[in-house]
Amino acid sequence: MDERSIRILQAIATLGTGSPDEIAAYTEIPKSTVHYRITKLKEEGIVLDDLFDIDLEKLGLEITVITEVIAEYDEQYHTQVGDKLAEIEGVNQVYFTMGETDFVVIAHLADREMVHRLISDYESISEVVRTSSQFVVETVKDEPHPLNDFELETLVETTTDLD
Amino acid sequence: MDERSIRILQAIATLGTGSPDEIAAYTEIPKSTVHYRITKLKEEGIVLDDLFDIDLEKLGLEITVITEVIAEYDEQYHTQVGDKLAEIEGVNQVYFTMGETDFVVIAHLADREMVHRLISDYESISEVVRTSSQFVVETVKDEPHPLNDFELETLVETTTDLD
Amino acid sequence: MDERSIRILQAIATLGTGSPDEIAAYTEIPKSTVHYRITKLKEEGIVLDDLFDIDLEKLGLEITVITEVIAEYDEQYHTQVGDKLAEIEGVNQVYFTMGETDFVVIAHLADREMVHRLISDYESISEVVRTSSQFVVETVKDEPHPLNDFELETLVETTTDLD
Amino acid sequence: MDERSIRILQAIATLGTGSPDEIAAYTEIPKSTVHYRITKLKEEGIVLDDLFDIDLEKLGLEITVITEVIAEYDEQYHTQVGDKLAEIEGVNQVYFTMGETDFVVIAHLADREMVHRLISDYESISEVVRTSSQFVVETVKDEPHPLNDFELETLVETTTDLD
Amino acid sequence: MDERSIRILQAIATLGTGSPDEIAAYTEIPKSTVHYRITKLKEEGIVLDDLFDIDLEKLGLEITVITEVIAEYDEQYHTQVGDKLAEIEGVNQVYFTMGETDFVVIAHLADREMVHRLISDYESISEVVRTSSQFVVETVKDEPHPLNDFELETLVETTTDLD
Amino acid sequence: MDERSIRILQAIATLGTGSPDEIAAYTEIPKSTVHYRITKLKEEGIVLDDLFDIDLEKLGLEITVITEVIAEYDEQYHTQVGDKLAEIEGVNQVYFTMGETDFVVIAHLADREMVHRLISDYESISEVVRTSSQFVVETVKDEPHPLNDFELETLVETTTDLD
Amino acid sequence: MDERSIRILQAIATLGTGSPDEIAAYTEIPKSTVHYRITKLKEEGIVLDDLFDIDLEKLGLEITVITEVIAEYDEQYHTQVGDKLAEIEGVNQVYFTMGETDFVVIAHLADREMVHRLISDYESISEVVRTSSQFVVETVKDEPHPLNDFELETLVETTTDLD
Amino acid sequence: MDERSIRILQAIATLGTGSPDEIAAYTEIPKSTVHYRITKLKEEGIVLDDLFDIDLEKLGLEITVITEVIAEYDEQYHTQVGDKLAEIEGVNQVYFTMGETDFVVIAHLADREMVHRLISDYESISEVVRTSSQFVVETVKDEPHPLNDFELETLVETTTDLD
Repeated sequence: MDERSIRILQAIATLGTGSPDEIAAYTEIPKSTVHYRITKLKEEGIVLDDLFDIDLEKLGLEITVITEVIAEYDEQYHTQVGDKLAEIEGVNQVYFTMGETDFVVIAHLADREMVHRLISDYESISEVVRTSSQFVVETVKDEPHPLNDFELETLVETTTDLD
Repeated sequence: MDERSIRILQAIATLGTGSPDEIAAYTEIPKSTVHYRITKLKEEGIVLDDLFDIDLEKLGLEITVITEVIAEYDEQYHTQVGDKLAEIEGVNQVYFTMGETDFVVIAHLADREMVHRLISDYESISEVVRTSSQFVVETVKDEPHPLNDFELETLVETTTDLD
Repeated sequence: MDERSIRILQAIATLGTGSPDEIAAYTEIPKSTVHYRITKLKEEGIVLDDLFDIDLEKLGLEITVITEVIAEYDEQYHTQVGDKLAEIEGVNQVYFTMGETDFVVIAHLADREMVHRLISDYESISEVVRTSSQFVVETVKDEPHPLNDFELETLVETTTDLD
Repeated sequence: MDERSIRILQAIATLGTGSPDEIAAYTEIPKSTVHYRITKLKEEGIVLDDLFDIDLEKLGLEITVITEVIAEYDEQYHTQVGDKLAEIEGVNQVYFTMGETDFVVIAHLADREMVHRLISDYESISEVVRTSSQFVVETVKDEPHPLNDFELETLVETTTDLD
Repeated sequence: MDERSIRILQAIATLGTGSPDEIAAYTEIPKSTVHYRITKLKEEGIVLDDLFDIDLEKLGLEITVITEVIAEYDEQYHTQVGDKLAEIEGVNQVYFTMGETDFVVIAHLADREMVHRLISDYESISEVVRTSSQFVVETVKDEPHPLNDFELETLVETTTDLD
Repeated sequence: MDERSIRILQAIATLGTGSPDEIAAYTEIPKSTVHYRITKLKEEGIVLDDLFDIDLEKLGLEITVITEVIAEYDEQYHTQVGDKLAEIEGVNQVYFTMGETDFVVIAHLADREMVHRLISDYESISEVVRTSSQFVVETVKDEPHPLNDFELETLVETTTDLD
Repeated sequence: MDERSIRILQAIATLGTGSPDEIAAYTEIPKSTVHYRITKLKEEGIVLDDLFDIDLEKLGLEITVITEVIAEYDEQYHTQVGDKLAEIEGVNQVYFTMGETDFVVIAHLADREMVHRLISDYESISEVVRTSSQFVVETVKDEPHPLNDFELETLVETTTDLD
Repeated sequence: MDERSIRILQAIATLGTGSPDEIAAYTEIPKSTVHYRITKLKEEGIVLDDLFDIDLEKLGLEITVITEVIAEYDEQYHTQVGDKLAEIEGVNQVYFTMGETDFVVIAHLADREMVHRLISDYESISEVVRTSSQFVVETVKDEPHPLNDFELETLVETTTDLD
């Protein structure tokens, strides 16, 4: 995939919109090209729908790694360490948890070399004491829209108190 | 939040589009209502952008639980067990991994009672041998658009071989 | 300590009152004896205050054991297993938890023989798969009145929503 | 619940008595109010009996967290660390144990924010090396009066040597 | 690499010799072809020396996985399970150990799909209770000739008793 | 076994050849002696085939130890620590892994004293934080030629993309 | 060492006496031989003193293995399993413990083959679920007379209540 | 038990003999008293036989604790730490092992207070990083004479090479 398509995809994610006008303005790629490229990305199955959900495997990001991170124990440390973890390239989710592990981190990567770099990136955070990474053999489910995880009735019940 | 708004949000997630026409057809809610409701959901900050990203906390789903699942060890068992886990209400991600744990599962929930039900749901899968759940104290990062996790150059490099 | 004093102490705990009338009625011990005994138990430091808090060590229950219990994994099993654990003599607290352990159980015991019996009692519950017990070297804190664990302001804040 | 009721409840716990006179003296709340409030707290089921046992859930303290604490290893360290743990708000029990964990700590809390604060409080103790917290899904048993955990005969036997 | 080269390489490994005559007889490939191919494999750096050591990465077997296997506990079970593990394609080393794990297994694989198959192969051994696999990020050392691991003097000392 | 035979064996391993000329030149042992010794080593079953595979047990290296090594966590530390581990006498394989352990190391040794020395050698690497060694009860498989681990077809498939 | 010396040593251990008369009667070895042999065993340093303490290493039992045993969980199971463990050849100590492990077992062995047999013996006990054995690198202390572990004053204090 | 009996018992253990002459000389207790006391200790079942094996429970040392000790990782550290552990009062066995734990230590103690002191003693060794102690519920076997652990034939075989 060439750079232009990627810049368009990133603009969509950053701007939170699929509007060709806004994307063209942001990327300085002609609007007609934006339009043409998006159509092609959909045809190729990389962009999956109007919400611009993306097929990560088709994009070459076929490796998923789940890492447990243990960090040095200092007052309010988790805020700082959490932010550093979140900034590492490829890192998609960072959770600070109550259990034995301090953080659970999920990253998407393209190849072995990126795995190597990811682990070096963890090592370079001075507060990190230990990491343990697991290679995902199969992503059984990764639903981009959590609302699809629920029955209608459950959501109605759950959100009633919020009105 | 009332049922109509939820039905509209679920339709967006299911159909993969924000088109009022399609949503109205799917939900049998008048198109003008669809339009009005979406506008209101954006104003309230529940719908965050044109890609219809949702603020889970505002929706009342403020509890995140990460569960490690160990299942009975039979040929190809992980396919079946993985599917059963994926169907449990609230379960958002299911990963089959290479490490000590068979599955890592992430769920979003609204309250203590739903936590109770989630754990009962895990117990009711006969192949499940043991689960260990961690309560997320803080979600430091949960980026709906993985492309935002990368520098432009990295993606260009990564995807070059795919053309 | 003789049986009568113990029957009086148990009556207090069971009835939830220190009223000599009610205790006398329940135990069929003359009211004057009830009164005399309670006074004596206070003098001896076994009964600590008007709320009839008891000094367990003075009563000979000087061993505390914390046990992690892992049980067979069946639908709704935790309710049944939890109840069976709760009925074992000496068991004071039973928690069903979200983590790697199913139950955390705290028991007070008088001697090595009772430790032996406690472990045999756990073994006799058929759903119990494994237990791991820790001997408490020192009880640093065991506050009978959780309200004493909080600042006034915190409680006021916490309970404001309940009115 | 308003501040006065809480001050009365705390006075009961601190003084170890339910006597309206003493409570009125200690809290400087008129004795008649003390009396009225206690009656009302009983009617509401917050105060459960004459021993002033309290329904924590009704009081809004519905979250229980069990934490394993590992601390730095220095001569007599457990006394100091244990005391610091005992002083953290919400902490109800602190046990120094012989097993892999140094301390087992049980806390009662009202909401997610208090969980967050509790974990920060643990972090702020410099000798603490690591904590692992478990969320209690269900409190199967938490008997305020350990004497209720035993048969009469057992207690008679146990305490015979103490006379 | 085409089939003929591979058949020649496997013949070398199976026969324990690099003799073109024997390889030609075993593979029914003309001797001159055998000779030519071996020369070419050396030029390409796939065959490294006269002992026919092979560069696994050049051959495409760039993934190494270390698996801990726990098996059912029956008399002499380790002989049977060990043999089954040894027969799985890609498995290079199988150790029955004294520690917590029953077997440590090392396998070389070419891609993600083979990892998937390897794990399914482990699952299909009925005595296997649990496996935990680790992905090797970097093979720091894998010396085909253990004698290179020692100083001359050490070996002289070690083997003196054997004469 | 005397020193000359060992020097010849090491020369074979170092030079990667069994050529008597090269070995004689390297070891300064007369070529006829080289030839005679190799023939004798084969007769004794120490050298197993023309590829000079060696029977480690016959050579007295009958103990195999698998060690998990955890090292201090610093940027790029694994390169340096890995190299230090690789240089320890007797160490045959060193893997840097993604899981809980940093390195998995396999060593062949002759006796209890060498086990003692190996552990002291690990201790003397300052970055090493902890090691856990397992004694191998039985080496079920240790195939010197990984190509023997595969079916012909698998290798053909695997290596097709490499031409 | 020949059979007669061993029979004499075993007689001493079994009878609990070093009396030549009793040993001669029990073993049917002439009393003069008994006497002569014991003197020789002392000279060789195998028998260390008049209490007939033995140097295990000199006797060839130079391997010590500590095993953690986890067994099936049934009422009173530990009595039966403990007895079976105690009967295995080479097993010297068997402790039923309160922690994660059911039994800790210590065995003295002569060589690798006996290690192999020991592990097979554990496997042949049907109630045994899992074992984890550790090889002792160095026995720092193994005092046959526990009284030597204490200061005089401590023992005086400890045993005062026993008179 | 009074001090004289204990001094006699310790003299036996220290001197390695039960000879009244030597014990009297060492302890400066009259020989006739030594003789009388030993006879009485045998009658009471504290001294079990002519080898002066002792019933620890009868002596009041009825608690056995098994501790896993992890120590700082420095070159040759285990010699120093091992010696310090061996000197702690009550410690009977100290093993330096190859597994996850550095040392396994077994101690005999009389009461809860001594357990407390033992743990403080471990803490006071600066190289000790962590300890995990298990309380022994039942000593199934603790054979003072390891020769009783073997069949005669096994010992004959084992020790044949030693002549």
